[in-house]
Amino acid sequence: MQNLFRQILLRKRPTGEPRPSDFEPVEAPVPTPGAGEVLCRTIYLSLDPYMRGRMNEGISYTGTPNPALGSVMVGGTVSEVMVSDNPGFPRGTFVAGYDGWQAYAVSAGKNLRKLDPKEAPLTTALGVLGMPGWTAYVGLLDIGQPKPGETVVVSAASGAVGSVVGQLAKLRGCRAVGVAGSPEKCDYVVKELGFDACVSYKTEALLPALRKACPDGIDVYFDNVGGDVLAAVLKLVNRGARIPLCGLISEYNATEPPPGPNLRPLLVNRVLIQGFIISDHGDRFPDFLRDCTAWYRQGRLKCREDIVVGLENAPQAFIGLLKGRNFGKLIVKVGDDPTLTSC
Amino acid sequence: MQNLFRQILLRKRPTGEPRPSDFEPVEAPVPTPGAGEVLCRTIYLSLDPYMRGRMNEGISYTGTPNPALGSVMVGGTVSEVMVSDNPGFPRGTFVAGYDGWQAYAVSAGKNLRKLDPKEAPLTTALGVLGMPGWTAYVGLLDIGQPKPGETVVVSAASGAVGSVVGQLAKLRGCRAVGVAGSPEKCDYVVKELGFDACVSYKTEALLPALRKACPDGIDVYFDNVGGDVLAAVLKLVNRGARIPLCGLISEYNATEPPPGPNLRPLLVNRVLIQGFIISDHGDRFPDFLRDCTAWYRQGRLKCREDIVVGLENAPQAFIGLLKGRNFGKLIVKVGDDPTLTSC
Repeated sequence: MQNLFRQILLRKRPTGEPRPSDFEPVEAPVPTPGAGEVLCRTIYLSLDPYMRGRMNEGISYTGTPNPALGSVMVGGTVSEVMVSDNPGFPRGTFVAGYDGWQAYAVSAGKNLRKLDPKEAPLTTALGVLGMPGWTAYVGLLDIGQPKPGETVVVSAASGAVGSVVGQLAKLRGCRAVGVAGSPEKCDYVVKELGFDACVSYKTEALLPALRKACPDGIDVYFDNVGGDVLAAVLKLVNRGARIPLCGLISEYNATEPPPGPNLRPLLVNRVLIQGFIISDHGDRFPDFLRDCTAWYRQGRLKCREDIVVGLENAPQAFIGLLKGRNFGKLIVKVGDDPTLTSC
Repeated sequence: MQNLFRQILLRKRPTGEPRPSDFEPVEAPVPTPGAGEVLCRTIYLSLDPYMRGRMNEGISYTGTPNPALGSVMVGGTVSEVMVSDNPGFPRGTFVAGYDGWQAYAVSAGKNLRKLDPKEAPLTTALGVLGMPGWTAYVGLLDIGQPKPGETVVVSAASGAVGSVVGQLAKLRGCRAVGVAGSPEKCDYVVKELGFDACVSYKTEALLPALRKACPDGIDVYFDNVGGDVLAAVLKLVNRGARIPLCGLISEYNATEPPPGPNLRPLLVNRVLIQGFIISDHGDRFPDFLRDCTAWYRQGRLKCREDIVVGLENAPQAFIGLLKGRNFGKLIVKVGDDPTLTSC
């Protein structure tokens, strides 16, 4: 354990789209855990759109200051405990944590969650059975309140959150309609995940295609993107529609906040928009994990992963994520996975 | 009763701002009530911003088709029963109804509500103790959910709805901040109604003035106007803020729907926006009437009326209402008020 290990630091705060030069790969000596601590070896790193906000100056929406320049980029991880002075996490335990863009990390165990690779592949802890799935579960079920027969639309439909939203909508007896960035992604959500329809917004005229896909209007719109999709949805919302506002990826790289959609449909149709951040909803994590693990194991909740190998490739993969270049939950494989499974 | 009486019809659907020529004053013979019906003489006609929407082609947001060209303009009224074949409403009864822009109307009594002029002046049934007050009550208390110590902002603060919102906020122990169209209106809401502060958006730079008036941020924004005020509020919202969306008067005369505000603060601050239409909330009318009548009689809920005399002046008064030219609840005095009271 005298080796150096790789970290990726935030070198510059991006203006607009992040560039590779905003990230700095460095090597550091592997740390030694202290009393009660564990040393974790990162196997998988999750890449998620929210990280773009954490690269900015200021306070993040979780209420904590964004990382300083020169800090390790933040992110959810799946790791193996290599050295342990914590009886709760013996050597060889697999854990989900928040170790960031680095190959090793020391932890007191407080924010680690044990994973059982026999129950579900390790990678699922970063996607369908992790933060993205939890986000879909709370946003759709608690805020969206879908009722059988209603039409649920979700943007970024083939992504880590959107793919779960549509499948949960189907499990609730709804019509599930996706909006995704290519015909291939649309094919996937309809044919593999069982959505009723999907609009490929880059190759189809959005509003007419969405109108056709939603002949009875829209009752719930789970918004991951904002922008043109939200504006089109607002032209088709039914009375009493609910819009869980989960993300606005269309504007994360904007240098000036763009205007939003005209809000008259909210008034006329008594629509609710509720912004939410999943970290506020810890009370629902056990319910989510119980339900979604069961559905996953029954084959009723499917997932797709887009795995990039090598931490050094994380910056490019992240830049691509913000442009929708990934197809499925984007994960960086940082180290060997002895379980050799994936979702 | 062989006299002619005045009505004002919708002659043309306006494009943009209504013009006097969009309205047509006519005279018609006073009708004779049939079996079970009453003949009502209009004393007061309420003018309200929602009427602009009812002048357009299409379906109104209450779900009924908008009036055809050549119909009597719609509107809430206070009337006296002149001829009655309905024992529920004997001759001489004062009633609140929805008879529109005309001096007489026949009704079967279904949508009439008896008024007791000894309990409160007749005009209050069109303002603080009528639809505008009910709107304020439901929007603020049920949707806004204000808690003691929170900051409540309301736009169109000296108007029929806004003035009640701010006073209810004070009754709930909140800081009440108005936004109004002139220093005189601001003086009124602070000095007469007890608001803590008021921003005169036409004579002050909105965002800095609002920031100064809301040193602890904004927890509830009761929106009557949309546009620039909503955009400024979104820059100052606290986490978990609630925005009952009651009206968008800033755009009622727009010929193209303008863009809305950037919605990122909704996400970051977990904000709720809920559009509502008061006619959905009939179940709360008795609570509203009980509470607000009591507060009014105790002098804890004050009102101000802007009374225009003569039905022929309704079109100009209504055009002015959409520009914020009224000061207080805008009412047209159509006929003699034998009770000779006002709020």
